[in-house]
Amino acid sequence: MKTYNVTILGATGAVGREMMKILEERNFPVKNLRLLASARSAGKILKFKGEDVVIEEAAAGSFGGQDIVLGAVSNALAKEMAPHILEAGAVFVDNSSAFRLDPEVPLVVPEVNAGDVKGHHGIIANPNCSTIITMVAVNPLNALSPITEMIASTYQAASGAGAGGPIELAAEVDALTSGGSYEPKVFPYQLAYNLIPDIGSALENGYTTEEMKMQNEGRKIMHLPEMRCTCTCVRVPVMRSHCISVVVRTKDPITVEDARRVIEAAPGTVLRDDLPAKLYPMPLLTTDQDLVQVGRIRYDLASENGLALWCSGDQIRKGAATNAVQIAELL
Amino acid sequence: MKTYNVTILGATGAVGREMMKILEERNFPVKNLRLLASARSAGKILKFKGEDVVIEEAAAGSFGGQDIVLGAVSNALAKEMAPHILEAGAVFVDNSSAFRLDPEVPLVVPEVNAGDVKGHHGIIANPNCSTIITMVAVNPLNALSPITEMIASTYQAASGAGAGGPIELAAEVDALTSGGSYEPKVFPYQLAYNLIPDIGSALENGYTTEEMKMQNEGRKIMHLPEMRCTCTCVRVPVMRSHCISVVVRTKDPITVEDARRVIEAAPGTVLRDDLPAKLYPMPLLTTDQDLVQVGRIRYDLASENGLALWCSGDQIRKGAATNAVQIAELL
Repeated sequence: MKTYNVTILGATGAVGREMMKILEERNFPVKNLRLLASARSAGKILKFKGEDVVIEEAAAGSFGGQDIVLGAVSNALAKEMAPHILEAGAVFVDNSSAFRLDPEVPLVVPEVNAGDVKGHHGIIANPNCSTIITMVAVNPLNALSPITEMIASTYQAASGAGAGGPIELAAEVDALTSGGSYEPKVFPYQLAYNLIPDIGSALENGYTTEEMKMQNEGRKIMHLPEMRCTCTCVRVPVMRSHCISVVVRTKDPITVEDARRVIEAAPGTVLRDDLPAKLYPMPLLTTDQDLVQVGRIRYDLASENGLALWCSGDQIRKGAATNAVQIAELL
Repeated sequence: MKTYNVTILGATGAVGREMMKILEERNFPVKNLRLLASARSAGKILKFKGEDVVIEEAAAGSFGGQDIVLGAVSNALAKEMAPHILEAGAVFVDNSSAFRLDPEVPLVVPEVNAGDVKGHHGIIANPNCSTIITMVAVNPLNALSPITEMIASTYQAASGAGAGGPIELAAEVDALTSGGSYEPKVFPYQLAYNLIPDIGSALENGYTTEEMKMQNEGRKIMHLPEMRCTCTCVRVPVMRSHCISVVVRTKDPITVEDARRVIEAAPGTVLRDDLPAKLYPMPLLTTDQDLVQVGRIRYDLASENGLALWCSGDQIRKGAATNAVQIAELL
């Protein structure tokens, strides 16, 4: 079997650590694993398949001999490193948003548009976490009739902000319980027992960068350049797994029965949809696994050709690390 | 000044206790306060304006001489007691959903349809908590151009399930922190660090009773019998104050500037809408007060005549107890 030299760029972050775990779990044919991070982490040791791997500082010259680089770093660092990765002849599967809307760069959710990988020129982008989860859930409907409109409200977990998010949430809960205090650093306000409708940065149109991804990335992934999407992104005091409440409208009406059938049959999804039996997706159920749960499927009461649904997925795994490794597998 | 004999039916629940507090705060002209509850609580003493009030067991004969009965009990008990209240000549301001859609019963949010109180025949219904908060937020837009469509996703606090909700959430957090365990009783699953898309009971159409209230009650309150509304109700690990993410579509387009202007000027609202300055409604900010905060106002990207917004209000106060006392004040 052919094996590959794989690099994780940003190995110490929440997504980078999960990428290593998933390469191991999925038994990806790794010849040699290189872990890159900032100078601060260089020299530290992580275990991969029982062996020590020393973390190296990410630098222009880090990519010689590499086949695949899985990136889990900031947009700025992704942009800085991309030319060096390409020069070294490696393929860069990038989890940042730096290249996602570049027409030369495929933006891929393997369950939705695996074929787009073929057109790559050295960089393949991994979509936004909430977008990946929503696309896995709604794409089966798009195959029945093209999606024209989506109205989404997200319920995003603390870990979506990186490894520091859940630590901050837990520290706040501890401080509140013990009567102490905690000054938020990761989130703009206390997240414990609170909701913060502010993820990403503010844009001129009143949306956040995170909210615009659902439309911009969704159009590219589903090949629906005219799809219109309004999204509200909210941080909730959950440790892990994002949920999304979505109303999906399609060119032609889709029955609830057909929606259930195609979602159940689709790759990457679990239908959990029986309200009287109290079966529906919840973050606690989707944490630490790769499937997107979909439920609460019912007719949109405000249109003739819409469905409302609720989905949940582990945004560090399927929403980031697993999706990136799946893209690497397609290569 | 005229004073009134006031009864709180269900005085020991979360809403009943808050009603007593609000009668005191708003200096409602109470001649005598009677507190009714189940046999279990009878004989217990609560303080009202510094004086002891002994809780009595609610019974058919409890309402003689009463002017106003504020109800915070189950639908079944509200239905059972209503004839006795009417027979005694008192007006019943009922927080249950038993009479809300009865065409003979006004359903009132004082900031929206105070005039409807006039047509009452002894019962006035207090709307659902999420519906009240949403109506206060969107009604100023309806005054500019009739609302044709709403798509809402709620983020509902533990205390919406009654006094036991926050106790259960706190107990779960404690158990998780100490490595212990806690069996949920109030909610169907663990709410701590989780989301439960299941409030009310399941209906044939796949919606919950709670979700249908936004359309059914919203139509009646805003006098919009044709308004279409799709709603998803989700319990979130917040102690108090519900939030709602809403897309509102109107007959004619409304500019963001006009929306801000009318919402700011409307009774019962606070405009908190400056995303770059990180000003937006949050549950921690609206807890223990009566105003509904509205923010994140921006154009709906999926229609030509829509706005997206985010609102937050204390569902025990404005969403229940305060609204009921405001109705009593209208009388």
